[in-house]
Amino acid sequence: MNKRILSVLVENHAGVLSRIAGLFSRRGYNIDSLSVGTVEDPAYSRMTIGITADDWQTEQIMKQLNKQVPVIKVVELLPDDSLIREILIIKVSAPVEARREIKDLADLYKASVLDITQDTMVLEVTGQQKKIESFIDHMKTYGLLEIARSSSVGMQRGSSVF
Amino acid sequence: MNKRILSVLVENHAGVLSRIAGLFSRRGYNIDSLSVGTVEDPAYSRMTIGITADDWQTEQIMKQLNKQVPVIKVVELLPDDSLIREILIIKVSAPVEARREIKDLADLYKASVLDITQDTMVLEVTGQQKKIESFIDHMKTYGLLEIARSSSVGMQRGSSVF
Repeated sequence: MNKRILSVLVENHAGVLSRIAGLFSRRGYNIDSLSVGTVEDPAYSRMTIGITADDWQTEQIMKQLNKQVPVIKVVELLPDDSLIREILIIKVSAPVEARREIKDLADLYKASVLDITQDTMVLEVTGQQKKIESFIDHMKTYGLLEIARSSSVGMQRGSSVF
Repeated sequence: MNKRILSVLVENHAGVLSRIAGLFSRRGYNIDSLSVGTVEDPAYSRMTIGITADDWQTEQIMKQLNKQVPVIKVVELLPDDSLIREILIIKVSAPVEARREIKDLADLYKASVLDITQDTMVLEVTGQQKKIESFIDHMKTYGLLEIARSSSVGMQRGSSVF
């Protein structure tokens, strides 16, 4: 069982998300993360779906997705050939005496400070899942207050086009 | 009709996404964007849902969401009180002679270069929807090849916790 990312081009209309989500839930596959957003052409959307599955399950899921009418194309984004990123916004406890340390750590992760109060900071960081998780782990030292995290989005490296 | 962002804390199990998506599609509300990802506690997920709706529709949607068993809490992220961000990865035509110009523009948007080939570049940028759209518009000059865009994620400013 591995974490995998599927990139799915679908028609953009009400009901498509519900149909795709239903396909996963009927088969008992949990979705780790899902993002749906616009692409160049407003007639289509791109869904990026994070799943935990073995090779056989992944193949089955991709076959099932391909059978759905609103699905135009499905590819698995393989880590070595793909640019995969997510964004994290995190609110941490940050009393005045901890601010410098948090800021130094943020700099190492190329995170930026979005907001600051007397006793909290909100930081933004982007990267691959492992980097995001390692940043969250570091921030636990200071006291996590809130996390908002997008699902992964991505595309294949190089000049090929989906 | 305005673009709005709802932040929804839900139980994390198979079927929740399908149920929420079904609620929107049955009522004919299209979802502009949706992100579902993990939060601090693995028993829950946070869905961030972008919709285009007027005040009355938004109120109805929030009421309906609140009635769903797996929904713990729903808030609308109001732009003035919230930190709302998305991430864009964009592949553009970039012959050698255009690279410098694209890089300068990327710097203005604090975008970073993720990949480069003989004739293409892949850039990453984060920010609010308007910034992302303005960046896409600029990149159209060079020739858009591919866009992968997360939905918005966000949280309330200040020290309050969702």
